[in-house]
Amino acid sequence: MASDEAFVTLATNDSYGLGALVLGHSLRQSGTSRSLAILVTPGVTQPMRNQLSSVYDLVQLVDVLDSQDAANLALLARPELGITLTKIHAWNLVQYKKAVFLDADTLVLQNVDDLFEREELSAVPDVGWPDCFNTGVFVFRPSNQTYRSLIQFAIETGSFDGGDQGLLNSFFSDWATKDIKTHLPFIYNMVATVIYSYAPAFKQFGQNVKIVHFLGSTKPWHQTNASSSSSVVLGDFLQLWWNLFNAHVRGGLEPGLAGLAGS
Amino acid sequence: MASDEAFVTLATNDSYGLGALVLGHSLRQSGTSRSLAILVTPGVTQPMRNQLSSVYDLVQLVDVLDSQDAANLALLARPELGITLTKIHAWNLVQYKKAVFLDADTLVLQNVDDLFEREELSAVPDVGWPDCFNTGVFVFRPSNQTYRSLIQFAIETGSFDGGDQGLLNSFFSDWATKDIKTHLPFIYNMVATVIYSYAPAFKQFGQNVKIVHFLGSTKPWHQTNASSSSSVVLGDFLQLWWNLFNAHVRGGLEPGLAGLAGS
Ligand SMILES: O=c1ccn([C@@H]2O[C@H](COP(=O)(O)OP(=O)(O)O)[C@@H](O)[C@H]2O)c(=O)[nH]1
Ligand SMILES: O=c1ccn([C@@H]2O[C@H](COP(=O)(O)OP(=O)(O)O)[C@@H](O)[C@H]2O)c(=O)[nH]1
Ligand SMILES: [Mn+2]
Ligand SMILES: [Mn+2]
Repeated sequence: MASDEAFVTLATNDSYGLGALVLGHSLRQSGTSRSLAILVTPGVTQPMRNQLSSVYDLVQLVDVLDSQDAANLALLARPELGITLTKIHAWNLVQYKKAVFLDADTLVLQNVDDLFEREELSAVPDVGWPDCFNTGVFVFRPSNQTYRSLIQFAIETGSFDGGDQGLLNSFFSDWATKDIKTHLPFIYNMVATVIYSYAPAFKQFGQNVKIVHFLGSTKPWHQTNASSSSSVVLGDFLQLWWNLFNAHVRGGLEPGLAGLAGS
Repeated sequence: MASDEAFVTLATNDSYGLGALVLGHSLRQSGTSRSLAILVTPGVTQPMRNQLSSVYDLVQLVDVLDSQDAANLALLARPELGITLTKIHAWNLVQYKKAVFLDADTLVLQNVDDLFEREELSAVPDVGWPDCFNTGVFVFRPSNQTYRSLIQFAIETGSFDGGDQGLLNSFFSDWATKDIKTHLPFIYNMVATVIYSYAPAFKQFGQNVKIVHFLGSTKPWHQTNASSSSSVVLGDFLQLWWNLFNAHVRGGLEPGLAGLAGS
């Protein structure tokens, strides 16, 4: 499906590729009218790229340090920022006028095409320090100029948390104070851990969740089976992930790739 | 010091009274030009009320179920809301045009009189579900009409978390989406636990903190000594609390009250 607007995700290896496959199917299931694009690095194998092509309209290979422009050369002096900056490549997808970035560890439960009504940079507050936005879901405008500014900013300022979230929050530093419309409702990036941290609010508002984010070190594809989760509710979200995986992803995978899930 | 604006807190027993004493001294130390008021219930002993009078300009006795008006009578059918609604009594302090409520487990580190430039209802996002505000610090306009509406709303709707935070968020339900100016910076109500949950952000922004909130079941007055805390940084905030307690509070307390701290 062609569109000048797209959902964009990222995978630097086959494990995150599994997440991206499930995410892509969840977006298709939501009935989106927008394009689906994924950035992959050389760490993603060809068989995985083939699978990704079956659900994503665009599979774009990126490699920060291969580029020849001056800003990227300066980055060679800051190798620790390499993985962080891969996400920044999304700004180079200028074939799209507007885009929504989604982490590969997110799952779309309901249609979220209304996100394209928002402007750059729209995102959900981070539950760690809520004057920062969480970079698992954000609306942005692809632009080579913004990409270059971000790279320049990264070289000069670095990232206070060593990742893309610190960098993007320092760059879009007026997010917390400028315009309420850039504050997306939390149901567009509900961090699965709130089920524990404020259970009554989850009970009150949880049925409206549109995107769940499996933030943290244990990803859905690391768990053999959803019922092993300590929480029934979290288990429900994991089950949705595995249902999509089993229905749409597992059958198409080579044994080597399929074996990554649950390991 | 008289003013038509006030900081307001609440204690329903002598333990929270200790917190209120330290909070009151921290406000005085911040050089505030506003009045200090505290709501107390009959559970606060006379010796504690005397101590509170030495730092608060107004010590106001409140008792929800004693009142004769119809709304409060209806509350007799909802006894579980009793403690929740005590905080709501702050709206009856109509001798003040504007007020800032502070939980008794907060500590003011820098002058925060600029909070009075904000309008009702201004507050910080809650780190559990950030489309809700945290009710440990909020700006409001005392009004008997608002008080009655809140009581009526409580009777009809209850509180989704059983506390004042659920009630106030349902009542001021457009907070998340209406006006960015009602979103106070997180440094006006920094929940002490962020030191663990997003340490790099605390490192980046923590030196600006104006109010720290010891949210959760372990309060400063429960800890015998700050260095027993598992975190050096959290220990620093606890030490500030104990420094104020030792310098300004402990000496004036009867042995029975002094013994509450650290027990
Ligand atoms: O080794 C990695 C780490 C991260 N990512 C991408 O970067 C996003 C952010 O990382 P992650 O979701 O693991 O961080 P968290 O949300 O848990 O903080 C992932 O969802 C992936 O899209 C990736 O492709 N490979
Ligand atoms: O038994 C109680 C419980 C609460 N409070 C008051 O209500 C506020 C909110 O409760 P708490 O701070 O314990 O809740 P938390 O911030 O930990 O959720 C306290 O700071 C006190 O001002 C009180 O006076 N007595
Ligand atoms: Mn993520
Ligand atoms: Mn509190």
